[in-house]
Amino acid sequence: MLDDLVVGATILAAGGGGDPYIGKLMARRSIRDHGPVPLLDVAEVPDDARIAFVASMGAPSVVVEKLPRASEVVAALEALEDHVGYRFTHIAPAEAGGLNAVIPVTAAALRGIPMLDADGMGRAFPSLDLVTPALYGASTTPLSLVDEHGNRIVLTTESSDWADRIARAAMITSGCVMMSALYPMTGAQAKEWLVRGALSLATRLGEVVRTARARHESPVDAVVAEQRGARLFDGKVVGVERATEGGWTVGEAVLCGLDDFEGQEFRLRFRNEYLVGARDGRIVATTPDLLMALELDSGAPIPAEEMRYGYRVAVIGLPCDDRWRTEVGLRAAGPRRFGYDVDFSPVEASLPVEANTRAAR
Amino acid sequence: MLDDLVVGATILAAGGGGDPYIGKLMARRSIRDHGPVPLLDVAEVPDDARIAFVASMGAPSVVVEKLPRASEVVAALEALEDHVGYRFTHIAPAEAGGLNAVIPVTAAALRGIPMLDADGMGRAFPSLDLVTPALYGASTTPLSLVDEHGNRIVLTTESSDWADRIARAAMITSGCVMMSALYPMTGAQAKEWLVRGALSLATRLGEVVRTARARHESPVDAVVAEQRGARLFDGKVVGVERATEGGWTVGEAVLCGLDDFEGQEFRLRFRNEYLVGARDGRIVATTPDLLMALELDSGAPIPAEEMRYGYRVAVIGLPCDDRWRTEVGLRAAGPRRFGYDVDFSPVEASLPVEANTRAAR
Repeated sequence: MLDDLVVGATILAAGGGGDPYIGKLMARRSIRDHGPVPLLDVAEVPDDARIAFVASMGAPSVVVEKLPRASEVVAALEALEDHVGYRFTHIAPAEAGGLNAVIPVTAAALRGIPMLDADGMGRAFPSLDLVTPALYGASTTPLSLVDEHGNRIVLTTESSDWADRIARAAMITSGCVMMSALYPMTGAQAKEWLVRGALSLATRLGEVVRTARARHESPVDAVVAEQRGARLFDGKVVGVERATEGGWTVGEAVLCGLDDFEGQEFRLRFRNEYLVGARDGRIVATTPDLLMALELDSGAPIPAEEMRYGYRVAVIGLPCDDRWRTEVGLRAAGPRRFGYDVDFSPVEASLPVEANTRAAR
Repeated sequence: MLDDLVVGATILAAGGGGDPYIGKLMARRSIRDHGPVPLLDVAEVPDDARIAFVASMGAPSVVVEKLPRASEVVAALEALEDHVGYRFTHIAPAEAGGLNAVIPVTAAALRGIPMLDADGMGRAFPSLDLVTPALYGASTTPLSLVDEHGNRIVLTTESSDWADRIARAAMITSGCVMMSALYPMTGAQAKEWLVRGALSLATRLGEVVRTARARHESPVDAVVAEQRGARLFDGKVVGVERATEGGWTVGEAVLCGLDDFEGQEFRLRFRNEYLVGARDGRIVATTPDLLMALELDSGAPIPAEEMRYGYRVAVIGLPCDDRWRTEVGLRAAGPRRFGYDVDFSPVEASLPVEANTRAAR
């Protein structure tokens, strides 16, 4: 089940989010040492429950080099508790995509408290202010940051922009990875704010990939069908441009069509996550919907960092949580937020005839 | 009296410490709006008093450009109070030298609480871990940092080195000046840890300069006599080398002797503060003793930043608090701490015959 979660979390990571593999190792060890973590539907949580997100913040490539200690995850929680003046009764993941889908398992296991089957994104985004609670006016701070050296920071800011800037400066100084606890909220708030079932969705996506492989069916079709998404393109990667800009991995993969898409071209633009997809020059999907590349045969999710010439991939689009599609949601996480001067295009509106047929199968 | 304090604080700043003029303006306005600040001898403070240092942290040249708001100073105190869980009953200056000699006046005035006539250095040093409480094992953190944007940080670290690194990163990100509250201590601890009478010493130094000028006597001799210091050299500045290295102003002023020192040369090395003085190649004074340059006729203190070719100055040495001369004190603040490979040389041991005579007058 942890294996399925990790595959699904990599799909929901939409190309970014950090590799959850390292988080899986931590989670597995924490569960072995401290017992299993109950996963609760938000509906089961008392209104007066005290909940926080626990997440790693930093450069994904560094996380892989230095396995965070379980004690750091708990220290992040404690630092926030010292600030708010109460203990948390439940943990929630900030994002069900990528590394941060599994990091909270460790906090919950060590504390012996349940984890919510809900997150604050329904996917991965590169910044901790891009969460559904923020759409309801919740503040990015207070926020704790804890590192491997035992340093603890509690940050309270007037804006999410300042929180991000100061947190990043501290994070870079301390060695590029910190553990964070943030968005303290009540059970009642969690019910309203969070994306319900985000972890079971990730687990289910991993499961359908595994099952389809075992049955020699198409894992890509299985993922698309599970989430009522769209198979936007099948193609071979013929070029990848990638640059690092201010800590972001920015670039574009160019794909040349295969099979039904023979003769067509697809451009998949990324800024950590895959954010804009254009087929033959026409935008067919954008953030906040999820764009993802899956290896054509195995369905293995391919992060933007790993895109290489010659890969044969399917580009799929999955609808995001409805709240990201509101005016305030699009202002926060629409394509313009990431510097792409295009309008949001809901993935289901852009299905080509062939793909629609395929998705409906 | 605030004017005397500012002149004396500039002398105790030993060439660094930031210009207290801007702090004087803040202090004057705070006292006008909120009433006078009682200055207490540490002996008068109850053992269970709750005391903290309040200080600005940042690039002195920036502080002059952006006058900190009084509210920021109080916010720094509040952020630390939120962390420790109690209210402070007294304020103390971290350093009686430079800007931070007067910044705490504003916090005390706005809060309506007394200020201690004691500091944590008996001079200025460039780093907030170079305080006498640290010699007793007190930790640099918890430490609060507050900026003009309303951002608040509370930092808890395993070492003063990490505190300094992370605080500086945050400070640079937020625009190079932050207000800090740190070293929460009891009245009993303050009695043991702090340098007693540091603010009245600064005020007295300012007063003897003013009085000597009025009487057409030598302000330089008056300062030296007041503190049983040494007049190490009289000379004309014939060269200044100054560079910025990792946020430090590093360099050396070369002086050519006048009067009693005719034919001799003096080299005054600085790293923010004046730290090492050598006359004709022989070290005559070093940190943690205070080295200071005073304008020869007026006695006006000349910070390292303002040293210029052609200035006629007296270089004086003043003994530091005895605790800086212990083994642990020298390890913290001796010349090697600042990268000078020389031994500490107590200023009174290095008096030339002429200067000894002069100092004894």
